[in-house]
Amino acid sequence: MKLNVGFIGSGNVAWHLSHAIDSAGHTVSQVISRNEDHAKELAVKFGALYSTRLSSVDASMDVCIICVSDNQIQTVVEQLVPSRVLMVHTCGSQRMDVLTPCSPNIGVFYPLQSFSKGRSTDMMKVPFLLEASSSSNYQILEKLADSISNSVQPADSETRLKYHLAAVFVNNFTNYLFQESASFLEENQLDFDVLKPIILETALKVQHLSPKDAQTGPAKRGDVVTIAKHRELMQQSPALLELYNELTKRLSKKP
Amino acid sequence: MKLNVGFIGSGNVAWHLSHAIDSAGHTVSQVISRNEDHAKELAVKFGALYSTRLSSVDASMDVCIICVSDNQIQTVVEQLVPSRVLMVHTCGSQRMDVLTPCSPNIGVFYPLQSFSKGRSTDMMKVPFLLEASSSSNYQILEKLADSISNSVQPADSETRLKYHLAAVFVNNFTNYLFQESASFLEENQLDFDVLKPIILETALKVQHLSPKDAQTGPAKRGDVVTIAKHRELMQQSPALLELYNELTKRLSKKP
Repeated sequence: MKLNVGFIGSGNVAWHLSHAIDSAGHTVSQVISRNEDHAKELAVKFGALYSTRLSSVDASMDVCIICVSDNQIQTVVEQLVPSRVLMVHTCGSQRMDVLTPCSPNIGVFYPLQSFSKGRSTDMMKVPFLLEASSSSNYQILEKLADSISNSVQPADSETRLKYHLAAVFVNNFTNYLFQESASFLEENQLDFDVLKPIILETALKVQHLSPKDAQTGPAKRGDVVTIAKHRELMQQSPALLELYNELTKRLSKKP
Repeated sequence: MKLNVGFIGSGNVAWHLSHAIDSAGHTVSQVISRNEDHAKELAVKFGALYSTRLSSVDASMDVCIICVSDNQIQTVVEQLVPSRVLMVHTCGSQRMDVLTPCSPNIGVFYPLQSFSKGRSTDMMKVPFLLEASSSSNYQILEKLADSISNSVQPADSETRLKYHLAAVFVNNFTNYLFQESASFLEENQLDFDVLKPIILETALKVQHLSPKDAQTGPAKRGDVVTIAKHRELMQQSPALLELYNELTKRLSKKP
């Protein structure tokens, strides 16, 4: 089934989804973005219409995918002219019913991945969590998702929020640890590049092993001598030391 | 230059290093381990001698690599019979001079990577941090490291310890976040597999982007609405909520 798909938004999520959807043989027919240059840049790749006006949603499309960040969706919804188009958002933290004012046909098309401009992503491996206001709407979203990914499942708004929270830990908080580590090395005129292979290996390991089985380190094995040596190095970095102590305490308590 | 290399220890580090060293055309001539089966299993792959006795170090080898965990090295050193063999350890947190009782020729051959049994590692990308008691000893270690890795550099004991500490943050503590995330999902009958692609992408992103530039998420953008929703989900998990609050506070303060 070939679908006619429009986009609201022209950022990373819109960029990656529209290319995957186009490659899967569907039609990307419209791109609406407050930034006309971005809308145009994306639309011309697919021979699609583009606009900056949220009132211009083409009523003939099968699905309109709103790709704006979680905290902008409310504003977009308020400016849309109600229609019968199947309107979906792509946010982990927003309930489906935030879209109720737009259309009787609504849903969520949430790719649980962090997309970056200029970095290609294997969309076939991206988990899509879907929700819809009716089973026929769900079937449309499922067809669309199945055509671009091998990992598609239903998830209601609460389930989706739980995954979103879990993703904050493994993505945002993990990256914060990378930041702290990079700052410490920089303060000591050392090179963050040296850590890159172990960062990658840490992520690769839990693709096949449970995080519990993958856990190693001084805190895990109760190596108080090494922990004391580490603490010594952070005498000039009290905030870092505090984080080290907290995480070491938590790891030591783990069974 | 073809080197004659022995190993003390038969765990993951010995396993990966000995295979890389053998493949690079050197001779793995001896494996000593307190576990005779493991010593034999590893030694037979290279036609090497094996033993359980630390007194049996072959005096004719060029380098003897001690591959035991950081907190066991002292015990091993105490049982070795002093010789003139170049003895090196592979620990991030141990000073080179812990080896002083073994030999006048000592050094450190530290691969900054987390090795797992049964998982192959691209040794050419593993950073090796080297230290030696003399420049001639350093040259031997550098030749050996250069033959198996493209990332070799000198590092004294304090520098090595700093890298080791930074690695605790990006490896052990990151994996702890994976554990917490997996526990939360399990308590909610949800599937950790759904997070695996974003875990991998988080690590891939900082291979090319600084962690500071890669940072995203509700805490980073000051999205208090999403943060409040997340907190609501952790009412039954006070320890997790406390960690969330601490890391969110830290991220919010970042420039």
